Amino acid sequence: MLKATARDEITGIVGKGNASFGKEELLCYSYDATNSLYPPDGVVFPGGPEEISRILRLANTEGFPVIPRGAGTGFTGGALAVEGGVILSLERLKGIREIDTANLTADVEPGVITGDLQAEAERLGLFYPPDPTSLKFSTIGGNIAECAGGPRAIKYGVTRDYVLGLEVVMPTGEIITTGTKKTMKGVVGYDLTRLMVGSEGTLGVVTRAFLRLLPLPEAKRTMLVEFLSLEDAAGAVEAVINAKVVPSTIEIIDDVCIRCVEKYAKVGGLASVEAVLLIEVDGKETGVQDDVARIRRIASERGAKTFWVASGRDEEKDIWNLRRAISPSLSKVKPTKLNEDVVVPRSNLVGLITGIEDIASKKGVVIASFGHAGDGNIHVNVMVDKNNAAEMQRGMDAVKDIFELTISLGGTISGEHGIGIAKASYIGMELSAEAIEVMRGIKKALDPNGILNPGKIFPKAFRQPQHA
Amino acid sequence: MLKATARDEITGIVGKGNASFGKEELLCYSYDATNSLYPPDGVVFPGGPEEISRILRLANTEGFPVIPRGAGTGFTGGALAVEGGVILSLERLKGIREIDTANLTADVEPGVITGDLQAEAERLGLFYPPDPTSLKFSTIGGNIAECAGGPRAIKYGVTRDYVLGLEVVMPTGEIITTGTKKTMKGVVGYDLTRLMVGSEGTLGVVTRAFLRLLPLPEAKRTMLVEFLSLEDAAGAVEAVINAKVVPSTIEIIDDVCIRCVEKYAKVGGLASVEAVLLIEVDGKETGVQDDVARIRRIASERGAKTFWVASGRDEEKDIWNLRRAISPSLSKVKPTKLNEDVVVPRSNLVGLITGIEDIASKKGVVIASFGHAGDGNIHVNVMVDKNNAAEMQRGMDAVKDIFELTISLGGTISGEHGIGIAKASYIGMELSAEAIEVMRGIKKALDPNGILNPGKIFPKAFRQPQHA
Repeated sequence: MLKATARDEITGIVGKGNASFGKEELLCYSYDATNSLYPPDGVVFPGGPEEISRILRLANTEGFPVIPRGAGTGFTGGALAVEGGVILSLERLKGIREIDTANLTADVEPGVITGDLQAEAERLGLFYPPDPTSLKFSTIGGNIAECAGGPRAIKYGVTRDYVLGLEVVMPTGEIITTGTKKTMKGVVGYDLTRLMVGSEGTLGVVTRAFLRLLPLPEAKRTMLVEFLSLEDAAGAVEAVINAKVVPSTIEIIDDVCIRCVEKYAKVGGLASVEAVLLIEVDGKETGVQDDVARIRRIASERGAKTFWVASGRDEEKDIWNLRRAISPSLSKVKPTKLNEDVVVPRSNLVGLITGIEDIASKKGVVIASFGHAGDGNIHVNVMVDKNNAAEMQRGMDAVKDIFELTISLGGTISGEHGIGIAKASYIGMELSAEAIEVMRGIKKALDPNGILNPGKIFPKAFRQPQHA
Repeated sequence: MLKATARDEITGIVGKGNASFGKEELLCYSYDATNSLYPPDGVVFPGGPEEISRILRLANTEGFPVIPRGAGTGFTGGALAVEGGVILSLERLKGIREIDTANLTADVEPGVITGDLQAEAERLGLFYPPDPTSLKFSTIGGNIAECAGGPRAIKYGVTRDYVLGLEVVMPTGEIITTGTKKTMKGVVGYDLTRLMVGSEGTLGVVTRAFLRLLPLPEAKRTMLVEFLSLEDAAGAVEAVINAKVVPSTIEIIDDVCIRCVEKYAKVGGLASVEAVLLIEVDGKETGVQDDVARIRRIASERGAKTFWVASGRDEEKDIWNLRRAISPSLSKVKPTKLNEDVVVPRSNLVGLITGIEDIASKKGVVIASFGHAGDGNIHVNVMVDKNNAAEMQRGMDAVKDIFELTISLGGTISGEHGIGIAKASYIGMELSAEAIEVMRGIKKALDPNGILNPGKIFPKAFRQPQHA
């Protein structure tokens, strides 16, 4: 619990309307997308890096945790106050300070919603590629903390690849600038920028981000391809990659997802289909036409049942609405489903898909798989109800088997969601004890009192959520 | 000096033929491309990570420095034994273990020569983009240590963007694997991979690198465009970028370089020209034709005197031979020239170029500029002779002015050469004291005894080179 004097000091730093310790407000900031509830002891809405610096210095003297928070859309608990403390909400820092059309860069505050930056860039003929499915809600700061990816990662990479530099408040209160603001290169000192990206809010609080933009591709085509089996669809993905075509997106959707989306999002016309690929290509008009023709040929050789190219933006939107409806639809069926985010080398995609089907039938659970097949990143949803203890246990067992399968196929247990609390107990499956010790050593060096977002990434006992 | 017992232990670890303490051999390993000479106390050629681990553990107990070394082509002193100690040459670890054509990845040892990896990838229809000018000699390990760039960085990025994961021996001897081997995504724990890239051999010894490859572009065109002034050429670069064309290379070459190359590399036909752009585009055949047409139009609007598109590989090679002859030719005129590597936002390229011309005339020194204009990265060569003390002083003053100019234009003092010893005393111009302290904190956490490549990056007194 926060001391009354600490509350007063926090309020003094940010001003009266910008700190709250009331039960209702604390409740609003006690959840994310993991279905866990961890009420904090306070929530604060700082107006800039200096205020954040003062709060962090206070946290070091008073010994309370500080948990940076964007939009709370994370899947692994990064924004949860698992050890209590103060939620540091970055929602007031939401300015797009500049989009520089000559240098193709953006200067934004962490609370900017990713989709808003994309829209603003597009208006100027520019392009910010990272596109997590949450992009209409999630923030640039949260995307940086988790190193968010998305469907376009296969061609364009992930958030890490678009961050040139950062303004960061260190856990001990120093405000530093890392990397560069507008240059495409820079090797002065250690790469603190990329150390911060994906560090899940445990090494610093990002207060400003200098991002790289691209010219908006001239042309784009969106395709929906139906298959009679998931293996056929996965095989087609491998064949496209082997043909050295580089689509901007190849998403795979299995039958569980299709049925679920049909039912809950009222998308029709996929009745007899067992798997769908959503493929997008972009670039110059001539190149795009060529890519569509090549993909059509490969899909046909691989047993595609139908091959539909969207004509116009409305049809493109329809296809993407289907894709974006998956996660909410699955949540309606099983609100407490276990949502994983494994990645395998692309050539092992069929092995992963068939292996997961085996695990589902062996463990007696329903598993819904969809995701970024083009880069081997599959979102595996084990459909369990936590009020059913036996089903939940089978689900947890299935998750462990899926992680073991993933690692045996040369993969990784998290492609873009991070570790947080959800996967902390599993990182030893992938990282050696020595590698974890190196990471802990860096954490200790930068946050000696462990006040910034404690209880995340590294396996550790933490308090149980209040409601589960 | 190394104790005799330490020598014996080192020899015991690597075997008799793989360690040397003889004067001649030490001399061979006491230089790099900075014209400084720092004889080490020993040189060792380990056969793998276990031997390196044992040497580093011994260094921690005995207290001697260990300096990892690739090909010794670095421009900033990264491979020099400035505090004595043992050179750890990675030259025996030169295996290309695998090129995976299905997953577009490579698994290589640090001593592999960059050009050899590129050739092997190309033979299989694949492409490793980073192309430092030293690529025929420099090694992947050295490229990773410095985060090497090259002409293609404007489109393809730098070494950092192609490293998926690393096997690293930590300064305290632990052997760890960072990142992923064959997956395009991975966010499990902190990004140690990118922390190692560009850390100049001060945070760990890379013993194996897992790299990302691309499909080899189908088509390519190489252009040589002549201008009557350097400002016109720089203006054309800005105009190409503004037109949202993304060439794979735009190199700029000034008149000093042209004259020098004509004289020393016997390249003719550029007599009346003051500046040259070397531009390359790649991609699909239709796309590159379109790009060439657009660039030709822009160049003509910007006052290009001639516009030549190479027909065939021989002519392409001629153009690249001209470019690669610059650095050696300049060295023939002034072997002790000061070689800098500044970057500005691309929209400030003309400002940098004209500012450097002003500094040259004000300080009374000749400055030769060339480099990667497309990403604002100019190699500035202050043509001084260190035996002429007055000229040398004017040169040093000019360098400081160039750094100040660069930073005032929103740039960085090193784009791809690193800091090493050459720029250590200048990093405070770009990084705040707080940012430097964060970096020192990481160094201290990972290398508590400071045995790995000491005296680099951070400003510090170190011994004078034996010959200058």
